[in-house]
Amino acid sequence: MAMAQRLKLKIQLYCGTEIAMGPGKADLLDAIAREGSISGAARTMDMSYRRAWLLTDAMNRCWGEPLVETAPGSAKGGGARVTPYGQAVLGHYRALQAKVHGTSDCADYAALAKAMLPEPRISQKS
Amino acid sequence: MAMAQRLKLKIQLYCGTEIAMGPGKADLLDAIAREGSISGAARTMDMSYRRAWLLTDAMNRCWGEPLVETAPGSAKGGGARVTPYGQAVLGHYRALQAKVHGTSDCADYAALAKAMLPEPRISQKS
Repeated sequence: MAMAQRLKLKIQLYCGTEIAMGPGKADLLDAIAREGSISGAARTMDMSYRRAWLLTDAMNRCWGEPLVETAPGSAKGGGARVTPYGQAVLGHYRALQAKVHGTSDCADYAALAKAMLPEPRISQKS
Repeated sequence: MAMAQRLKLKIQLYCGTEIAMGPGKADLLDAIAREGSISGAARTMDMSYRRAWLLTDAMNRCWGEPLVETAPGSAKGGGARVTPYGQAVLGHYRALQAKVHGTSDCADYAALAKAMLPEPRISQKS
């Protein structure tokens, strides 16, 4: 079985008690860059506009500069773009993800993968 | 600020849709080894006996051999121990955690830590 399916690595960066960057926020940045708006990004990610806006707002408050810029004078329909600063932060996060995934492919992981069953046994106790 | 406080790395190993090992299950194994029972481990981890039992049962069903052995004939009060097989699995998981944490201390992490604020800004929008 492929390693990616059995090993899940989650990298979260905390700013105080707020998650400044994590898998969901990174995917949202990608979606905003692709769709050109928070509402469009929310649609493709199957989340509410409100949730996408809150995640974007949290990101924008955690870094030295905003990661996402929205077009002025528009509440919901307006455009949004990932700033160059946001692109740089996203790039470093993706690189960190790739590095961590790469180094996890080691003897310890191999030993765990070998010891683990392909599927769990059925529970004996009801 | 120390790296451990700002960077959170979660390693989960999946057996089908079941989490065979993760930070919480590894800590539970440590607690069972220390306390000598599932109920004692649950107490020190501030979780219900039922939850600790379910996590233990899930672990025991995901690996080639059980990770935890309980004393026969005892429902709640009886003893439990981490098997040598369980100790080996736990050791590989802890080694994987250490390795991943070590390699995350890189230029990309340094760039992210530098770009992140010490505390989030207050939201402007109500």
